[in-house]
Amino acid sequence: MSINFQSIVVTLNQFWSDRGCLIVQPYDIEKGAGTKNPHTFLRALGPEPWSVAYIEPCRRPTDGRYGENPNRFQHYYQYQVLIKPSPDNIQDIYLDSLRALGIHPEDHDIRFVEDNWEDAAVGAWGTGWEVWLDGMEITQFTYFQQCGGIDCRPVSIEITYGLERLAMYLQDVDAITKIQWNDRITYGEIFLQAEIEQCTYNFEASNPDLLFSLFDLYEQEAKQLLDRELVWPSLDYVLKCSHTFNLLDARGVIAVAERTRYIGRIRHLARQVAQLYVRQREKSGFPLLNDRPEVISSSV
Amino acid sequence: MSINFQSIVVTLNQFWSDRGCLIVQPYDIEKGAGTKNPHTFLRALGPEPWSVAYIEPCRRPTDGRYGENPNRFQHYYQYQVLIKPSPDNIQDIYLDSLRALGIHPEDHDIRFVEDNWEDAAVGAWGTGWEVWLDGMEITQFTYFQQCGGIDCRPVSIEITYGLERLAMYLQDVDAITKIQWNDRITYGEIFLQAEIEQCTYNFEASNPDLLFSLFDLYEQEAKQLLDRELVWPSLDYVLKCSHTFNLLDARGVIAVAERTRYIGRIRHLARQVAQLYVRQREKSGFPLLNDRPEVISSSV
Repeated sequence: MSINFQSIVVTLNQFWSDRGCLIVQPYDIEKGAGTKNPHTFLRALGPEPWSVAYIEPCRRPTDGRYGENPNRFQHYYQYQVLIKPSPDNIQDIYLDSLRALGIHPEDHDIRFVEDNWEDAAVGAWGTGWEVWLDGMEITQFTYFQQCGGIDCRPVSIEITYGLERLAMYLQDVDAITKIQWNDRITYGEIFLQAEIEQCTYNFEASNPDLLFSLFDLYEQEAKQLLDRELVWPSLDYVLKCSHTFNLLDARGVIAVAERTRYIGRIRHLARQVAQLYVRQREKSGFPLLNDRPEVISSSV
Repeated sequence: MSINFQSIVVTLNQFWSDRGCLIVQPYDIEKGAGTKNPHTFLRALGPEPWSVAYIEPCRRPTDGRYGENPNRFQHYYQYQVLIKPSPDNIQDIYLDSLRALGIHPEDHDIRFVEDNWEDAAVGAWGTGWEVWLDGMEITQFTYFQQCGGIDCRPVSIEITYGLERLAMYLQDVDAITKIQWNDRITYGEIFLQAEIEQCTYNFEASNPDLLFSLFDLYEQEAKQLLDRELVWPSLDYVLKCSHTFNLLDARGVIAVAERTRYIGRIRHLARQVAQLYVRQREKSGFPLLNDRPEVISSSV
């Protein structure tokens, strides 16, 4: 039997752990991408080295198709790696991670297609590539140039695997629902009903007035927590603003002219969180700058 | 070097995966216990077999001590196992899981101390034991009698390991902050600043009026989603009610007489979610009842 979904996660955890990455856990607030987990969003900032890998559940309300599109769920899993500074041979290391999964690059058409990435709401962008495996995008590579509107020095590399895509490829199945999560139960058996209901919620059932109120309350709380210089609690409320905006967007109740203003409000908060974090780390003497053995080695 | 924190998780995942458990991921909404993850809260209901294991980040605002108490953080990690129906030899299997971690029961004082468990807010309770290892509680065993106010038939066994406790024991350190997360970075280096700030938030900085508003809005949204028979989205809002109540409680702004009423409001919602889930599964013919190979075997 081919590798199941949970074993893919095990394999990637082992691979990146062997190369010195911390293996951490998903963050317990809804988010659209692994980038928003503080292990990336905050740690990509400032001069301290950092190497981390984790799986992250993502919610992208507008991407939902009620489970009917075989390739597209509004809830899915990213596998995220962030390494600062970026090792020179990171592409080779990445290809080794595919080998660990049983994909031998020499037998396949693997392309690194230039693709710059941006998340305007959190003031993050970078240069990089999409990785295509036999015509299917399976990974995004990004060299972070800015995060929270702050220049990244040194530059981190972020690698984001699309786990469902990888699993469909490795298991040779043509729908997310058919992925074997373990050898007994499929992805669809676990998640399809939730997917359908969450799409109904996102597109039809959510109460827009209530969501508008929530957005304002979250923003208000983020602001007063920033005034008190509380980095982590304020970031939580920025994440809540961001997800609430995504819900309003999916509900179709934000006019085009309003969209930019909402994104600007979130970006303004995210930038303040980022600045506050860097000041805080500076004040404490950037403790992770201390001498340590080299984090990443290409061979283990 | 003794086993690091992330390796404990790997070992438990491997152990329970080998015994047929699905290995799933933390749920992306704040919660006080792994029980509230839908992989437990919903799946413990009804006749379908279910076996799952996962790590879960928990937030218990009142437990915070600003990182100053060596044994007590308001944010910590549980490792949660739920098996339905409960296997007869589950205590032996559990002891094997300790062996996998390098704790040999024959060399230690391991006690199963009777302890019934209840989470009134979600209408869940059960009989069971605390497991004490050389005088320290490391695990809670619970045979679920009710969940969401519904009788559990068959009864599930829930095993909840306190990961920080286990790690402190295995690494022979006397504070959570000193736990090695991997061999290079400690738990404190990753989480202490967040812990201090979240305690400041929970006890001093949160805006009670705003939290009271959030509780009402979440409850209102849960109710209208229950009217539309949306199990998963309504559960999300019940979890938000529950966490918001915990924040209000930590802030000391809920009078004793009010406490019971708030818990009652959450329990009322949780019960409706549970009832709706069981009706929905029944309507679809309890699909996981289909013949499958036995889930749990004591040897592998």
